[in-house]
Amino acid sequence: MAKVKDIKWQKGMKVFELVKSLGNCGFQGVELNKAVECFTKMKREGAKIYLTFTSNMTTSGLRGFFAQLIELKMADVIITTVGSIEEDIMKAIGEDFYIGNYSADDVGLHEKGMNRVGNLLIRNESYERFESYMLEILAKLYAKKNRYSVSEMLKEIGLMLKDERSILYQAAKNNVPVFCPAITDGAFGFHLFMFQQDHKDFVIDVVQDFANLIFSSTHDDKKAIIALGGGVSKHHAILGTLLNGGADYAVYMTTAHEYSGSLSGATTREAKSWGKIKDSADAVTVIGDVSITFPLAMFAALDILSEEGLI
Amino acid sequence: MAKVKDIKWQKGMKVFELVKSLGNCGFQGVELNKAVECFTKMKREGAKIYLTFTSNMTTSGLRGFFAQLIELKMADVIITTVGSIEEDIMKAIGEDFYIGNYSADDVGLHEKGMNRVGNLLIRNESYERFESYMLEILAKLYAKKNRYSVSEMLKEIGLMLKDERSILYQAAKNNVPVFCPAITDGAFGFHLFMFQQDHKDFVIDVVQDFANLIFSSTHDDKKAIIALGGGVSKHHAILGTLLNGGADYAVYMTTAHEYSGSLSGATTREAKSWGKIKDSADAVTVIGDVSITFPLAMFAALDILSEEGLI
Amino acid sequence: MAKVKDIKWQKGMKVFELVKSLGNCGFQGVELNKAVECFTKMKREGAKIYLTFTSNMTTSGLRGFFAQLIELKMADVIITTVGSIEEDIMKAIGEDFYIGNYSADDVGLHEKGMNRVGNLLIRNESYERFESYMLEILAKLYAKKNRYSVSEMLKEIGLMLKDERSILYQAAKNNVPVFCPAITDGAFGFHLFMFQQDHKDFVIDVVQDFANLIFSSTHDDKKAIIALGGGVSKHHAILGTLLNGGADYAVYMTTAHEYSGSLSGATTREAKSWGKIKDSADAVTVIGDVSITFPLAMFAALDILSEEGLI
Amino acid sequence: MAKVKDIKWQKGMKVFELVKSLGNCGFQGVELNKAVECFTKMKREGAKIYLTFTSNMTTSGLRGFFAQLIELKMADVIITTVGSIEEDIMKAIGEDFYIGNYSADDVGLHEKGMNRVGNLLIRNESYERFESYMLEILAKLYAKKNRYSVSEMLKEIGLMLKDERSILYQAAKNNVPVFCPAITDGAFGFHLFMFQQDHKDFVIDVVQDFANLIFSSTHDDKKAIIALGGGVSKHHAILGTLLNGGADYAVYMTTAHEYSGSLSGATTREAKSWGKIKDSADAVTVIGDVSITFPLAMFAALDILSEEGLI
Repeated sequence: MAKVKDIKWQKGMKVFELVKSLGNCGFQGVELNKAVECFTKMKREGAKIYLTFTSNMTTSGLRGFFAQLIELKMADVIITTVGSIEEDIMKAIGEDFYIGNYSADDVGLHEKGMNRVGNLLIRNESYERFESYMLEILAKLYAKKNRYSVSEMLKEIGLMLKDERSILYQAAKNNVPVFCPAITDGAFGFHLFMFQQDHKDFVIDVVQDFANLIFSSTHDDKKAIIALGGGVSKHHAILGTLLNGGADYAVYMTTAHEYSGSLSGATTREAKSWGKIKDSADAVTVIGDVSITFPLAMFAALDILSEEGLI
Repeated sequence: MAKVKDIKWQKGMKVFELVKSLGNCGFQGVELNKAVECFTKMKREGAKIYLTFTSNMTTSGLRGFFAQLIELKMADVIITTVGSIEEDIMKAIGEDFYIGNYSADDVGLHEKGMNRVGNLLIRNESYERFESYMLEILAKLYAKKNRYSVSEMLKEIGLMLKDERSILYQAAKNNVPVFCPAITDGAFGFHLFMFQQDHKDFVIDVVQDFANLIFSSTHDDKKAIIALGGGVSKHHAILGTLLNGGADYAVYMTTAHEYSGSLSGATTREAKSWGKIKDSADAVTVIGDVSITFPLAMFAALDILSEEGLI
Repeated sequence: MAKVKDIKWQKGMKVFELVKSLGNCGFQGVELNKAVECFTKMKREGAKIYLTFTSNMTTSGLRGFFAQLIELKMADVIITTVGSIEEDIMKAIGEDFYIGNYSADDVGLHEKGMNRVGNLLIRNESYERFESYMLEILAKLYAKKNRYSVSEMLKEIGLMLKDERSILYQAAKNNVPVFCPAITDGAFGFHLFMFQQDHKDFVIDVVQDFANLIFSSTHDDKKAIIALGGGVSKHHAILGTLLNGGADYAVYMTTAHEYSGSLSGATTREAKSWGKIKDSADAVTVIGDVSITFPLAMFAALDILSEEGLI
Repeated sequence: MAKVKDIKWQKGMKVFELVKSLGNCGFQGVELNKAVECFTKMKREGAKIYLTFTSNMTTSGLRGFFAQLIELKMADVIITTVGSIEEDIMKAIGEDFYIGNYSADDVGLHEKGMNRVGNLLIRNESYERFESYMLEILAKLYAKKNRYSVSEMLKEIGLMLKDERSILYQAAKNNVPVFCPAITDGAFGFHLFMFQQDHKDFVIDVVQDFANLIFSSTHDDKKAIIALGGGVSKHHAILGTLLNGGADYAVYMTTAHEYSGSLSGATTREAKSWGKIKDSADAVTVIGDVSITFPLAMFAALDILSEEGLI
């Protein structure tokens, strides 16, 4: 058994040094360090990495980091909700989001045309510019053909964005499919609907995308899940890997707990009962806000992998 | 300002008496009682009620209660995730789920073909019977036509189920649309995909369902949201009412917190910044496991509404 | 294995009927029903019951319910923090507390002399009246003798209060010791300190109270813990029973989780590693706000025990 | 309003660079960076710093970091629970604690004489060695005099420990008082009790310690609270500063939420209604496991303060 070791500050400590030290300190620090080990192993073993996240993370500055991870080949498949798609596009066309606070006057914000997401703010104007841009995009897509699977459509959009910090752009450029199982659950859905009103033969084929999900890895591939937050994104990654035999590596980072039986709070341990994660898999659940835990753990892992020449 | 009042047990107390008493006791009891008031007002005012829940709630015995609520006209629109659809069907065709525990041996369960959802268990056989049933259903649906919106397909399935305690059956019978924005995110998706392999012209049109969502209420209707848990189900109800001017009543019941900025943890207060809920709306957020808080509050509300002849 | 059963509303349902139904529904409802069973068993077996709670619960209307439980012989030992003592006294001398809301303007409240506890409010005047009353009480106590253990002092105070809904009064009347391991951590401590400034030989002997804790049960007694919330109150009950061989029954009701390793979030399962709870004990952890879960479960248990003539 | 900025990994990044970047990213990262700013300001302004923590943190490797903070003059007053005192002593006399896991077999651990604290383990032997050591210590203390306030006793013990990584030792050496408002709530209490059985005039005077708490700062001092976790430790620091006019700086780091009205989950905002924290104070609440958030934020702050020559 490993011993608990006192942690000690030294001037100018590096992220990976701190995280390593947390691994002998206790509680979630221990789990965080296991996540680092799991991240490094999945890359060393050449696993197909399914990275999933919820749209609030794209609202935050994690968005550029996700794009960087795709560029660094640390994500082979992306799964997220449609809010992420919308906001990645807004940012790619130049919109800025702002930092507010949790106890803001929400009625006042409404009057000012500001929409709150925790302690972040999105202006109504950003949604308006997104709408205009969507009209252009959909016309271009339709000019090519009239039936798209979701990931196919998102790849076409990604190629148009030309922003190095865009998730969709980096994914398109690096042949990383982006799945979004509830594509209509947002403003994006409204724009698709309006477009279809005038173009009845325009079809988004979600069933066809299931093929793409299944063929995103094989039974023989090592498979890894990095699930940030819960919801359909997390579930879809689990589903995709389950159909090919289950994941060999899994890191769940979340604020949700298991006591209400939700998928969002379901642990990597519970996943083993389903065969979602192999019985022998390296798997760890880290509880805490992903805006802190994920950069911390992944920065440490990237330092290690960079040292080994793997990224 | 209302005073805090001591609560006192009396033999044989009724649910609505306890809940009323909690309303003067403090903390979440106060919020729970506000939820009861909100439930009764939305019904008295004839609001269109959007009831949303996550699939784990259908795993639990809340499933029959949701069906009863539809029967009682306490839900005009249902929004849920595909796990709910699958498990409602399994139960309708006679499958039983079991009560286990949170700290079960998950690898052992896997060997026994039991899949864990918190402290509940689903057998592999239930998924197998579901698969056989789906093959039949899809053949019947395709025999009628080749293009369905999701809610249209779910209505057809509901009519076949003939189980009074089934959500889909009661919804179909009572003309309550069931939306499921990520219909492929589960075994259901796999079966759709397999069917489409052999029937290339079979299309599930998610965009068309957006029209159904928008037309599920009007700008002039009073609109109410009862969101149990978070995720796309909650978001989709918000989206649907937002497009028609925002909700007049909203009860969010959840275990999620706002500190990570997720939609699941977003409060009714935050929703006002978006106009998702009207500035003047009756709105309350109750924190706690829905398996306890929802029956407790809704049973109390139903007693009151029944007394008033409204259900 | 028990089957999951659908729950169904019937008009005028009683609390114990609902709770029983939740026991077959899933998630925390199942645990809640186990708590009911544990409450009834501990009483049937004549266990010494250690009831612990935090001071916010005394701020709420649970205060009168705790007093009632002592009167009904459902608590043989009380352990709480000093805020409970202060607020029980305030209420006993006629002070009212008020219901506010979580998102109040706190700087504004401060200007109005209102102190917020979640969604409850205490006026500055209540603290002022408490101060006057304490000066009287301490003078009376000192007139009798100059050295008190904490529980001895609290018994003397209880006898002065003459309020049937007071925890201290019912405890004193029913010979139920009240332990408060951090008696100086509040306004009470300040008043003790001021009094000691003028009466140097006045001593509160916390060490002597340890004897009272140990002798509050024996090795041969069956022992039960009902821990509402965490902190030193919970820990002290565990300590008291551990020294006499560990608890035979334990119900922990809390909002805290185990992931940070805190005692507040520690489960009954973890307690078994320490021998705090016997390996064979009936033990259950219910996650949720005690203002809802505790009355719900205990009302159901009292109905059952009353039927059996045990209370 | 500040803009959200994408975060980006660079090889070998330092902790303070990452934390600064999180400050523009969103959610708890923003709050974490505010904590860093608050830590640096409180030191620059020469505030008296009250550092409080719960005993599980001393179980972990944070223990040595707390000792280092005392040495660096980043803590002027320490408040904790008695578990911290016990475990700091165990570690100072050479006992090791171990890293286990949250889903351990607790009955099995009990048989092996291992006690679980989340994912950490303490052997029975450590408690036995602590007992022997306490007997020695108490005899030495009693030889000097028969009446001690708690902080006075802890200073004497600290001086005996001679371990640079010990909280008690560093506190004693640096004249930092250690308050422990529930000194009897643990094995320590049992040993005090046993000793008092044979030495009836031995008194631990908790009331006298209130004077020490009050005089630990003045009305004119700037005062700061760093509360890690909740419970009596947090409350005692608040009480101590409130009596001298309230805190000018406050950082609460916790996993508890405000919805149940507990002090542990009470935010810095709520504290303003009480005057616990001045209306104009710099105050921030960071939600998350302290084993990660505190080292992260404090390491960043120490780097900045070291650069400025302030530590």
